[in-house]
Amino acid sequence: MTYPERLLLGPGPSNIHPRVAQALSGPLVGHLDPVFLEDLDELSLNLQRVFRTNSDLAIAISATGSGGMETIVSNFVDESKNVVVALNGAFSERVAEMILRHGGNLKTVGFPWGQAFDPEKVAKTAKEHKADLIFAVHAETSTGVLNDVQKLGSLKGDSLLAVDCVTSLGGVAFEMDAWGIDIAYSATQKCLSVPPGLAPICISQRASQYILKQPRSWYFDLNLITKYALPNSERRYHHTAPIPMLAALGEGLRVLLEQDLELTWQRHIQTAELLWQKLSELGFELPVEKSVRLPSLTLVELPEELAQREAEIRKILLNDFSIEVGAGLGKFAGKYWRIGLMGYNAQPKNVIRLTGALKEIMS
Amino acid sequence: MTYPERLLLGPGPSNIHPRVAQALSGPLVGHLDPVFLEDLDELSLNLQRVFRTNSDLAIAISATGSGGMETIVSNFVDESKNVVVALNGAFSERVAEMILRHGGNLKTVGFPWGQAFDPEKVAKTAKEHKADLIFAVHAETSTGVLNDVQKLGSLKGDSLLAVDCVTSLGGVAFEMDAWGIDIAYSATQKCLSVPPGLAPICISQRASQYILKQPRSWYFDLNLITKYALPNSERRYHHTAPIPMLAALGEGLRVLLEQDLELTWQRHIQTAELLWQKLSELGFELPVEKSVRLPSLTLVELPEELAQREAEIRKILLNDFSIEVGAGLGKFAGKYWRIGLMGYNAQPKNVIRLTGALKEIMS
Repeated sequence: MTYPERLLLGPGPSNIHPRVAQALSGPLVGHLDPVFLEDLDELSLNLQRVFRTNSDLAIAISATGSGGMETIVSNFVDESKNVVVALNGAFSERVAEMILRHGGNLKTVGFPWGQAFDPEKVAKTAKEHKADLIFAVHAETSTGVLNDVQKLGSLKGDSLLAVDCVTSLGGVAFEMDAWGIDIAYSATQKCLSVPPGLAPICISQRASQYILKQPRSWYFDLNLITKYALPNSERRYHHTAPIPMLAALGEGLRVLLEQDLELTWQRHIQTAELLWQKLSELGFELPVEKSVRLPSLTLVELPEELAQREAEIRKILLNDFSIEVGAGLGKFAGKYWRIGLMGYNAQPKNVIRLTGALKEIMS
Repeated sequence: MTYPERLLLGPGPSNIHPRVAQALSGPLVGHLDPVFLEDLDELSLNLQRVFRTNSDLAIAISATGSGGMETIVSNFVDESKNVVVALNGAFSERVAEMILRHGGNLKTVGFPWGQAFDPEKVAKTAKEHKADLIFAVHAETSTGVLNDVQKLGSLKGDSLLAVDCVTSLGGVAFEMDAWGIDIAYSATQKCLSVPPGLAPICISQRASQYILKQPRSWYFDLNLITKYALPNSERRYHHTAPIPMLAALGEGLRVLLEQDLELTWQRHIQTAELLWQKLSELGFELPVEKSVRLPSLTLVELPEELAQREAEIRKILLNDFSIEVGAGLGKFAGKYWRIGLMGYNAQPKNVIRLTGALKEIMS
């Protein structure tokens, strides 16, 4: 009872690295077994290296990426907090909704879908709103836009800056400390080449002082989770760690660091540029301006001859070629595709396989 | 980079079935792939059969067992709700804390650790407190006590009855509909022979009318989750499903149902009785009265000669025999062990291997 082999070129999950698959299926051990706790120590250190930070509060939350988002919101936002969100896609809309649900005093700064936000405008609003927190999405999975969180970090003033790096971490340049990012959250199934199921997060020493003493959520309460998950903690039981997924993430991070993080960022850019060139030759449009186009996920507009049958063509790609591409999300549903080249999948051969199949369909 | 082979006889995780390991490591597909959605349909139907219910609101939450607990609390408890908790172990204490955090008007009915609760007393308190909800733990993982939730179901009156069946589901008789249980939540790493990482939950049709319109939690919001996770839903994207773990759970349920659920319950009892007999012969005490003793997890008091070195002996079992047993939790830390014989591990050969090792250590 296993699934067919697919080339997963949608917005995630992406194909996992063979070494990750092996780690996932190894023998199970207990969540207090010394061999597992050693691995958990290394996981935390390697997360720091991938987030590019000296902060040792780097762990994986036992939930998917959106659970990581909720961990951050529930530990930092309550009725006393002014929060500004830079709004230009489905995932900034999602965090805005979570902030409202947690009682935060929300102010959004909106920009059109498919365009980057203006860091100056976001920072100005944060200042006016006396924002305790600014939330921004680095790589918008719904639009394929790369936002300038580095610039925003330099302008943030006294606010804490929380950044969603779900579709960038490990595949696109991201520098937590150098860019002045206080809080970051991500997911495993994109550029880390690990299945969906965990949410890596990282919190700077400065931000850690603002963790709420008792968030409403018990499951996502960082005061409790860190007593088990951090190296040098007392390893105090909170919930049963999802061991195989943590082993898989541990191996994914090892592979990434062995292959070199900066070289991997470059590989993502080069592979994306090949995709952009090949798609343009086939008559596809790339609605996102090149200067803010995300290497890990590309928004594409189909040529007229395909646009009317976009759902059918995705089906043909899946059934006849075993290739998955992503449909448009939210405002972009039915209009665009999203093509991911993330982590293990960011290889020229996958561009050739996809564009070859498209050529075949169009011929 | 894999872990050593361990015999996991603690309170969970328990060893997984070989077919589950295979499902876990199969090729990855997308969360909207028709082959995966078909599997998700079957998963929901098989969960209904394992929960013994006709309610079709049976899904797996993308978090561990405690995340399932929090899903229930956050979807059913707010400031307007009167809630009664039958308190006699670490996991009823946990749910009580979650209820307080969610603003519920909480009334607890306490009983000594290691004893079952009195359903009549719980029901009486629920009536006096005009309880909207009663929370009770079926199989207390911290004490090895089996509580009579069937009796409580017959006495619950107008209250909704929510039951934690983390350490019973699949291994100990549990009848959601026949016993009048409205809400149930469990975990994968106990009697289902699946790794930790998901929380199966089930909600009766009656209870589903009381799901809060907008819980504070977005990640655990059942109004949104069910639009993706339920068969016949619109499969509307909420969060990226943790595909390998869902495939593993799907296979675990198939194995369980093929082997027959009722026969499996009997196998758990027979294996536990062998353990109880062998341990008594070795001079171990079983503090929980036999009539309420849990087959899947046994609380044991070490003979005097071992009691002073209980942590050391657990270490010897792990390092020299590759067997894990559980330490005491909460009030029972340092005092007792917890020995699990769950799911795939509920086999006489494992009892013999453990008691053989103990005999060796004691000789």
